[in-house]
Amino acid sequence: MQRTSFAEMHCSIGQALERVGEWWTPLIVRDLHLGLHRFDDIAENLGISRNLLTRRLEALVADGIVERRAYQQRPLRHEYHLTEAGRELVPVLMALMAWGDKWTTPVGGPPVRLVHDGCGAEFTPQVCCSECGEPVTTADVTSLAGPGAASGPGTRVLARRNGGASEES
Amino acid sequence: MQRTSFAEMHCSIGQALERVGEWWTPLIVRDLHLGLHRFDDIAENLGISRNLLTRRLEALVADGIVERRAYQQRPLRHEYHLTEAGRELVPVLMALMAWGDKWTTPVGGPPVRLVHDGCGAEFTPQVCCSECGEPVTTADVTSLAGPGAASGPGTRVLARRNGGASEES
Repeated sequence: MQRTSFAEMHCSIGQALERVGEWWTPLIVRDLHLGLHRFDDIAENLGISRNLLTRRLEALVADGIVERRAYQQRPLRHEYHLTEAGRELVPVLMALMAWGDKWTTPVGGPPVRLVHDGCGAEFTPQVCCSECGEPVTTADVTSLAGPGAASGPGTRVLARRNGGASEES
Repeated sequence: MQRTSFAEMHCSIGQALERVGEWWTPLIVRDLHLGLHRFDDIAENLGISRNLLTRRLEALVADGIVERRAYQQRPLRHEYHLTEAGRELVPVLMALMAWGDKWTTPVGGPPVRLVHDGCGAEFTPQVCCSECGEPVTTADVTSLAGPGAASGPGTRVLARRNGGASEES
């Protein structure tokens, strides 16, 4: 599977996609979150080939999103669990699910309902401002070049903004 | 580029990935959000091949995430803009960016800073509960089978939960 790597891109979306953007990977993270921890269970649930699942899990372990835990010694058997980084990815997937529920609604309606144990309500995940708590939209967010901005591929537009060095000067 | 389709999967994450899970697609949506609307500008900013960008834009238009707008008649030239569905995808990408900022921090720090015009603060996107406004985590969300749940690939685990029909009965 030859394709461009985003690893050199100075963009945190690109960096995130480098780790979790592979086809199948978000669904594996979802299954681990939903309580499937054994290879055979995930393979069966997703209908994914065992070779591909092995490769995806190895990459997720290497990237620190998933960890292997021995649950049996003879013979040695492992389960797969989300790390803290993996667990923090799940709310992002919930937000993606809400987008899918709205814009690509499967036949019959949303396949999953989410209940927030904190308040007891069935809820829709919303992306909010950490400072005021209000939902954010494209209309009310301004993106500025941050400390790690550079004018490499994928970030020229932001490097030019905000007084950054222009490549076209 | 032969791969399994998620189109038949009763999962809104799968459905969303079917539309925006292709390699490069989230970065194209990001560039459109950041104000790049012309083919040449996006191609240059991302360093993506023109053939691939053409295919990705065509798919995004077909899926209702991007629309073409003529900006010149002779010769006919088009710009690309996000539709409402596309604009609503951007906060999800912001949440993914925040995850990347934290867990895959590029050299030099986060490449982008976000300012919420509503409150004026620089902020971190957080996925929150639509009902109480609090951030949600894997620890305090329960997933239940929804009206569109089915026991096809990718959703067996949820169909089994919540009193759904078991495939193993």
